[in-house]
Amino acid sequence: MEFDELLQARRSVHEYSDETIEDSTLESIFEAATLAPSGYNLQPWEFLALRDDDRKSTLREVAYGQDHVVEADTAIVVLGHTDPMAHAEPVFDDWLAKGYLPNEEVRDGLVESVEDMAAMPESDRQTWATRSTALAAMTLMYAARDRGISSCPMEGFDSDALVESFDIPDEYEPVMLITLGYAADGTGDVENDRKKRRSVDQVVHYGEFDPGRETYAAADD
Amino acid sequence: MEFDELLQARRSVHEYSDETIEDSTLESIFEAATLAPSGYNLQPWEFLALRDDDRKSTLREVAYGQDHVVEADTAIVVLGHTDPMAHAEPVFDDWLAKGYLPNEEVRDGLVESVEDMAAMPESDRQTWATRSTALAAMTLMYAARDRGISSCPMEGFDSDALVESFDIPDEYEPVMLITLGYAADGTGDVENDRKKRRSVDQVVHYGEFDPGRETYAAADD
Repeated sequence: MEFDELLQARRSVHEYSDETIEDSTLESIFEAATLAPSGYNLQPWEFLALRDDDRKSTLREVAYGQDHVVEADTAIVVLGHTDPMAHAEPVFDDWLAKGYLPNEEVRDGLVESVEDMAAMPESDRQTWATRSTALAAMTLMYAARDRGISSCPMEGFDSDALVESFDIPDEYEPVMLITLGYAADGTGDVENDRKKRRSVDQVVHYGEFDPGRETYAAADD
Repeated sequence: MEFDELLQARRSVHEYSDETIEDSTLESIFEAATLAPSGYNLQPWEFLALRDDDRKSTLREVAYGQDHVVEADTAIVVLGHTDPMAHAEPVFDDWLAKGYLPNEEVRDGLVESVEDMAAMPESDRQTWATRSTALAAMTLMYAARDRGISSCPMEGFDSDALVESFDIPDEYEPVMLITLGYAADGTGDVENDRKKRRSVDQVVHYGEFDPGRETYAAADD
């Protein structure tokens, strides 16, 4: 689908039909997600894909009972590895092999930069992992929509309960949940007018930041 | 452009031509970015767009001397508002007006949920703002590429120096920088083989999280 069309068609959907997602389609959506950019190409993302009713029910509990977690064909726990060094060495070896770096010395300098990042406090590393992982999550949702599949990103869940229920190791930050499935016929999420967005005038500052402007227009403007 | 084609065509570009981006094209890229989803549709994103040489030079200093900041037509400071309540009331009024909520009581309950989020510690609010803002940033980069314009997301910059140089109020988190421009002819960023991605087998866990697997294949596999 043309990207502009995709952009207009994407909505966060909370009601799904019973139609199942083909395994190969799901795989291609994940494949697309891996093509997202990330800081230093470190790719901190991991995806825990839940497709059976038992596991989705467990996730629903963690997600404060939201039913679309179970109704969706697939519920995805999007995680980010909070250690920037997790894949740094092979990533920079790849850059060197492909001509992105002139020599080993530059490669070693990059490893040192990432070692410095790895020494950040945990809260900064959580933000770091969230940043790049969200880029992959957005890519995943567009790739899904491109295949006729709707999604809903969710940040309302009990992170501690999630980690405990699914045995997530300490070094992974739960970034968001995403439900994936074919939208139910006639769901308001698709039929209603799109939820209002702050306008370009409200969110873009040219040259200097102007915090004093109107940041949200009235609903009836 | 078809989304799959766009996905394959997007690369992080560090060398730009002198060709300028039309104002209306830049505007349409920002417009696209505003269509990203966000937690509760709270849209924490703000974009500071720098287009003149003086301001881009100041940003280059903050970004450890990276030249593409100046060579790019536009350098964008992507910021996230760390107060979830910043736009909550009008956002939920909009939901109610468009039929996404059944009544005022539900609307008020949502405002209360966001008030709870707003009481989170600052580091959690930084992660919160980063999450949704990165979704808009990814959308912005695809919208640019769809118009033939390359981008480079950057997390390597001195956040304190940025805030001071551009007078950014305390409540905004610098999420990333993005350079935007037409790629220089023959740049390695476009000509080289794509930087390797961790494969679907390495990043997707079905049913349960398996931290013990191989997480990055050798560069020559």
